[in-house]
Amino acid sequence: MQSLGLFVKPSYDLAMEPERFHYDLENCSIKRALDVLGEKWTLLVLREAIYGVRRFDDFARALKCGRGVLSARLKTLIEAGILKRVEYREGEQRARAEYHLDERGIDLFTTIYALSQWGDRWMPPPGGPAAKVTDRGSGRAVKVVLTSEPKLKSLSMRDLKIAPGPGAKRIK
Amino acid sequence: MQSLGLFVKPSYDLAMEPERFHYDLENCSIKRALDVLGEKWTLLVLREAIYGVRRFDDFARALKCGRGVLSARLKTLIEAGILKRVEYREGEQRARAEYHLDERGIDLFTTIYALSQWGDRWMPPPGGPAAKVTDRGSGRAVKVVLTSEPKLKSLSMRDLKIAPGPGAKRIK
Repeated sequence: MQSLGLFVKPSYDLAMEPERFHYDLENCSIKRALDVLGEKWTLLVLREAIYGVRRFDDFARALKCGRGVLSARLKTLIEAGILKRVEYREGEQRARAEYHLDERGIDLFTTIYALSQWGDRWMPPPGGPAAKVTDRGSGRAVKVVLTSEPKLKSLSMRDLKIAPGPGAKRIK
Repeated sequence: MQSLGLFVKPSYDLAMEPERFHYDLENCSIKRALDVLGEKWTLLVLREAIYGVRRFDDFARALKCGRGVLSARLKTLIEAGILKRVEYREGEQRARAEYHLDERGIDLFTTIYALSQWGDRWMPPPGGPAAKVTDRGSGRAVKVVLTSEPKLKSLSMRDLKIAPGPGAKRIK
């Protein structure tokens, strides 16, 4: 049996305690990130923000969720620095709020896109991916990879163009 | 205001319907992936599997969760092809079960590591990352990047060594 790391010995011994338990299990970036994100609605709010949705009513419509739930999710994401609330006013109308991606939200794109890439690979939608992500500079397709190339710099979400893909179902 | 894609026009018009709503919102790999993963416990079970935990009692101990909840999570992950149940027997003892990462689970490492990298960057643990991930081949640090380099191949989790990092708190 292959060992995937040093935390647990390759061969499990019934009497042996896995090395995993010699470490503080709560001291973990995955846990801290999931304390904010580990909830389906939160990630779907983020998906809509990435697709460019900005207004409360539009988030509610896209996610078909209650206003109370949505309010709570937006609040969590703002407190975490993932979204920011931006007020705007058109003409004489009262100020309204939009929700834009903040720096941490923009940086989360890599995680969301890795998830999407995994979904496209293992649960492929009929007709292909619903979104097509390309590098604005080169026009080439963008992917998420694990690499140990020290000189390779990651693109940022700001460098990308997100467009409907071959599997996007236009309904209007 | 910068447009992040074609789904929504750069300038939101109060009277205009975002283009996002011209597409079928359910047709999405993120949604399908979250139907399996969009739940904190599920991702934490996966984290433990990545760290090499394999037995029911060890998962329960690491996650401090009830046996019913854990059973349900393991079942979901097995049905999704992320974990597989492996029976083993030592000597005359009755068969026991271990839960190993299956192909889809191994391929999810990129997403989990992207999340961990984000957590390390924006919610840095005192003392540094709890895990250190290196390429077994080159010995160099591994990172997750967005790239449009067509020739760049991703490393697999099988190519990596996951060891305690500078911030790992040894308690025994």
